[in-house]
Amino acid sequence: MPRVTFHPAGVTVEVESGASLLDAARQAQIPIRNDCGGQGVCGRCLIEVKRGEVTRLKSRHRLGPGRDLACRTLAAEADIEVFLPRESRELEVEVTVRRVEPFPPDYPPPGGMVERAQIEAAPPSLDDNVADGQRLLRHLREWRPGEYHIPLRVLSDLPVRLREVDWRPEVALSVEPWGHRVLHVGPQTGRPCCMMAVDIGTTAIKARLLAPESGWVASCYNSQVMFGPDVISRIIHCQRNEGGACRELQESVVADINLLLDALLEASGLRPEDIWGVVVSGNTTMIHLFLGLCPVWIRREPYVGCAYHLPPIRPKDVGVQTNPAGRIFCLPSVSSFVGADITGGVLATGLAERQKPAALIDLGTNGEIAIGCREFLVCCSASAGPAFEGGGSASGTRARDGAIDSVWSDGAVQWKTIGDAAPLGICGTGYIDLLATLLREGMMDKTGRFVEGAPGVRREDGELQYLLVPADRAAVDRDIVLTQADVENLVRAKGAIYAAGSVLLQSLGMEWGDLANIMLAGGFGESLDKDNAVTIGLLPDVPRPRIEFVGNTSLQGAVMVAENAQNYWKARDIAAKMTYFELSTHPDFMDQFVSACFLPHTDAEKFPSVAGPAQ
Amino acid sequence: MPRVTFHPAGVTVEVESGASLLDAARQAQIPIRNDCGGQGVCGRCLIEVKRGEVTRLKSRHRLGPGRDLACRTLAAEADIEVFLPRESRELEVEVTVRRVEPFPPDYPPPGGMVERAQIEAAPPSLDDNVADGQRLLRHLREWRPGEYHIPLRVLSDLPVRLREVDWRPEVALSVEPWGHRVLHVGPQTGRPCCMMAVDIGTTAIKARLLAPESGWVASCYNSQVMFGPDVISRIIHCQRNEGGACRELQESVVADINLLLDALLEASGLRPEDIWGVVVSGNTTMIHLFLGLCPVWIRREPYVGCAYHLPPIRPKDVGVQTNPAGRIFCLPSVSSFVGADITGGVLATGLAERQKPAALIDLGTNGEIAIGCREFLVCCSASAGPAFEGGGSASGTRARDGAIDSVWSDGAVQWKTIGDAAPLGICGTGYIDLLATLLREGMMDKTGRFVEGAPGVRREDGELQYLLVPADRAAVDRDIVLTQADVENLVRAKGAIYAAGSVLLQSLGMEWGDLANIMLAGGFGESLDKDNAVTIGLLPDVPRPRIEFVGNTSLQGAVMVAENAQNYWKARDIAAKMTYFELSTHPDFMDQFVSACFLPHTDAEKFPSVAGPAQ
Repeated sequence: MPRVTFHPAGVTVEVESGASLLDAARQAQIPIRNDCGGQGVCGRCLIEVKRGEVTRLKSRHRLGPGRDLACRTLAAEADIEVFLPRESRELEVEVTVRRVEPFPPDYPPPGGMVERAQIEAAPPSLDDNVADGQRLLRHLREWRPGEYHIPLRVLSDLPVRLREVDWRPEVALSVEPWGHRVLHVGPQTGRPCCMMAVDIGTTAIKARLLAPESGWVASCYNSQVMFGPDVISRIIHCQRNEGGACRELQESVVADINLLLDALLEASGLRPEDIWGVVVSGNTTMIHLFLGLCPVWIRREPYVGCAYHLPPIRPKDVGVQTNPAGRIFCLPSVSSFVGADITGGVLATGLAERQKPAALIDLGTNGEIAIGCREFLVCCSASAGPAFEGGGSASGTRARDGAIDSVWSDGAVQWKTIGDAAPLGICGTGYIDLLATLLREGMMDKTGRFVEGAPGVRREDGELQYLLVPADRAAVDRDIVLTQADVENLVRAKGAIYAAGSVLLQSLGMEWGDLANIMLAGGFGESLDKDNAVTIGLLPDVPRPRIEFVGNTSLQGAVMVAENAQNYWKARDIAAKMTYFELSTHPDFMDQFVSACFLPHTDAEKFPSVAGPAQ
Repeated sequence: MPRVTFHPAGVTVEVESGASLLDAARQAQIPIRNDCGGQGVCGRCLIEVKRGEVTRLKSRHRLGPGRDLACRTLAAEADIEVFLPRESRELEVEVTVRRVEPFPPDYPPPGGMVERAQIEAAPPSLDDNVADGQRLLRHLREWRPGEYHIPLRVLSDLPVRLREVDWRPEVALSVEPWGHRVLHVGPQTGRPCCMMAVDIGTTAIKARLLAPESGWVASCYNSQVMFGPDVISRIIHCQRNEGGACRELQESVVADINLLLDALLEASGLRPEDIWGVVVSGNTTMIHLFLGLCPVWIRREPYVGCAYHLPPIRPKDVGVQTNPAGRIFCLPSVSSFVGADITGGVLATGLAERQKPAALIDLGTNGEIAIGCREFLVCCSASAGPAFEGGGSASGTRARDGAIDSVWSDGAVQWKTIGDAAPLGICGTGYIDLLATLLREGMMDKTGRFVEGAPGVRREDGELQYLLVPADRAAVDRDIVLTQADVENLVRAKGAIYAAGSVLLQSLGMEWGDLANIMLAGGFGESLDKDNAVTIGLLPDVPRPRIEFVGNTSLQGAVMVAENAQNYWKARDIAAKMTYFELSTHPDFMDQFVSACFLPHTDAEKFPSVAGPAQ
């Protein structure tokens, strides 16, 4: 079997002759960018074959000299050495640990999903000789009334443990649907009883450590990206590779979570055994893949998941390396395309408790919208695609150092990158700014077509495109451009979000203006220019103060559940109460979508504040 | 390392030089009789060293030529061949399968501890696209209202299973303290959903198969006997050999249960996967050892067990080879010495629902007594010792072919054996008959002393003894005798039982005559002669029809729980409601015990129907 060595990582794997180098890279756990799941479509999985013999399948991409696509290049008989250029290495799992407002010293407060009770039991006597288990339950019920369950594993060494500590044990407990579970009985350690809240995004994973005085949030890319950029392509991967694929995706995300855990523990000086609980949020597919539940029916009509309300599990059920006696809880999802992230968002924003209706828009790879107040709660999901996350575009990139995240015009079009690094590509906010700027400057019309002859607009392969950064100023060896196909993707994406919200409002007999707030959640919310988002019709034309950036409400919701078990029940109520509108079959959605595929909209009256040059 | 070969089994093991041949036998899983746990006390573990070199420790037993005690004989350097004479081979695990009244063809009825539901679900549609798990729960709640829990293991292949069967699955369910647990979802198999009820006795294990038309009961010796004959010696074994010993005892009893299971499956033509539930009864120590819970605190003041109300567990938690997705339930115990067998007995006899008070006496290695009616329920335990089970006596044996189980006088003392085989020894009922006969015939006085000069009474080593069968008529190469020490053991045992019942009654302000029934449970009840039992003062002198043999009520209770989950709750209520009297600290017990250590009793007025020769 030929051996394939990947540089610069220097990792070697043995593969079957005839295997694609993309599969070889996955086997070697080398994160390699690709947006089409290895279909030869996206042209992202660039490699340079440095030594050895390969079979090159035909490709419609024109690649630089010495370059091939890993998915179209097959190993032959002999050993191969492959170099991954920077563009295809975007996915190296880099964990970022950020300091945020720390928790107080007595954090977490009593009443969280896991907790420790300090028990002082009376030793047994002839007058009071109930069994050890019963004695413990008696004291636990004194500590806090309720149902308790001691599993066999804990019972089996309970007599030794209780006597070792002279009947003054520390008891670790978790909240379960039917009461409390005794996780551990042992000596008083003086160690904190910590938790971790995790938001598994399709693109990025974030985790916050819930510990005394801890102010740490860690994040990394979701390395499942190597199996596809969005939930649909990952589901397709599961479908094409029956059996092992779900497991592969599960292992991938769990490895990421363990990396975040390591980073958080290191930053805070805590140990894995201090982490007794993990609360996980994320969209429905991410939660399925985390738990190893097969998600393939999520994308097949009538779009049903395996389960939305999930039982608490043990860390070893999935491989998370916290205290093995601890518990993992998932926030409940609402439907196959409105996930725990939205349940968490509704919880975190208090949407279900407001007097006046408001909207929560979570703009990720999928766009979800929830509208509600204490009287009602509805939601829907619109497939925005990865355009706003830098996926599927000629020069798209994720929000990272070197990503162009802001574009404006001072006569000439200007841009800046995150971290002021040399530009790698354009991220979501950059695209919104760029569209709005080109529109305002008259270089693009309301249908999204480039105006030929405008500065920077050029024709390439018969198609118009806008050159933002020439290759010689870029950190990649090609021009950073906006193509007509990119514009179409972005317009469809923003049109879908706007139309989804409009249909949802219409079904309630409401309009955008009736909403007291429009809350924008998701990683990219904070750096978004409100006026530009309204200019392109992504957000409705409402008074700007009503538009609010609420940050990662999925993670916030997970934190709220972890620290207060009442919120666990609240989240279950929210998920059960929320009415899901399936847009794919809604009679008005297609009309609204088509109307919204203009800049800002075919009905200019909906956007009075937007004065486009074509008006 | 020397190798030891045991004949007639022909099994060879390697042992450390210096290991005792009793340990070698255990290591080889050769059941070898011993009643003292290898202390050199009981003189039961007879072996004949046929070849090789051994070290013989001093022994106070006078053994036949060529014979040694396995526990006092150590392996040296060279290989050894050992023959086990018949007397020390009593423990070979022989499974007896007996036909009893078969269950009806539609057995088990609905509502048992495990059950299968045939579900016909509506397939999901765009109008009804709840998750698969939620859909299943909906249909299960239609099938029977209640709480249901689907564990991750079942969820993970639920979508595939439901679609494979076109939404018409068969669902296996179990009853749990908080509702139902979904054990399995699969195609309709047409197979029965069977269970097994098990009574783990200290001496013998019995199991009944709960299947349509099944009339099979299997039994075998509890091969834990090789670690000691009663619960106390087994607990001491756990204590002396920390860590592994509990596990060893657990493996031993689980292996026995698996043998019974095999035999029942073979007799009925069923498969292991047909057995979805196991309900286990037994005394508190047996249940502890079955679950791998350390029992050492049961015998230390203040005598507390690990837990009496036990969670349902998985077969793999203990190693029982039924359907791995099934469940195992243990009946609850009351105290460290009133176990699940008594809870089961109270359930089976309806003691707690009677209008008039009655007593249940379970006469095993320990004697437990429960007295009650619908108004009250009290119980206690008296350490009877193994005397009535043939343990600890010069010629004692268990009730088996060749055991003398009946003795009478037609002028001369006569006896018969079980199966009319050549006599091996005397079992419990034989001892009771023998004591009563000798008493009636004036060969023994009310204090239990032999009358010197009476026929058969002889002096051996300065002590009087009664010769029942000379060696030349016995199947063993020694006389079958009743020694003065045996009589003392038996009198203490019967005295403890009677005194325990008396103290319990006294504490209720009652007398034996106030009881509507005295029910005698346990394997040996059925062949007991009521008059003889009264004559020696084991049972009170009440009108004979009030004395009832109720058989193995522990097993009956397990069957009742298995077939009707209501009885599971009832058993928990019984165990919780029953008031336990600790006799070891009761101020009256010792007086009552001393008074009862006569034949029949120091107070002859308590036994008006017994006309002894000394009166």
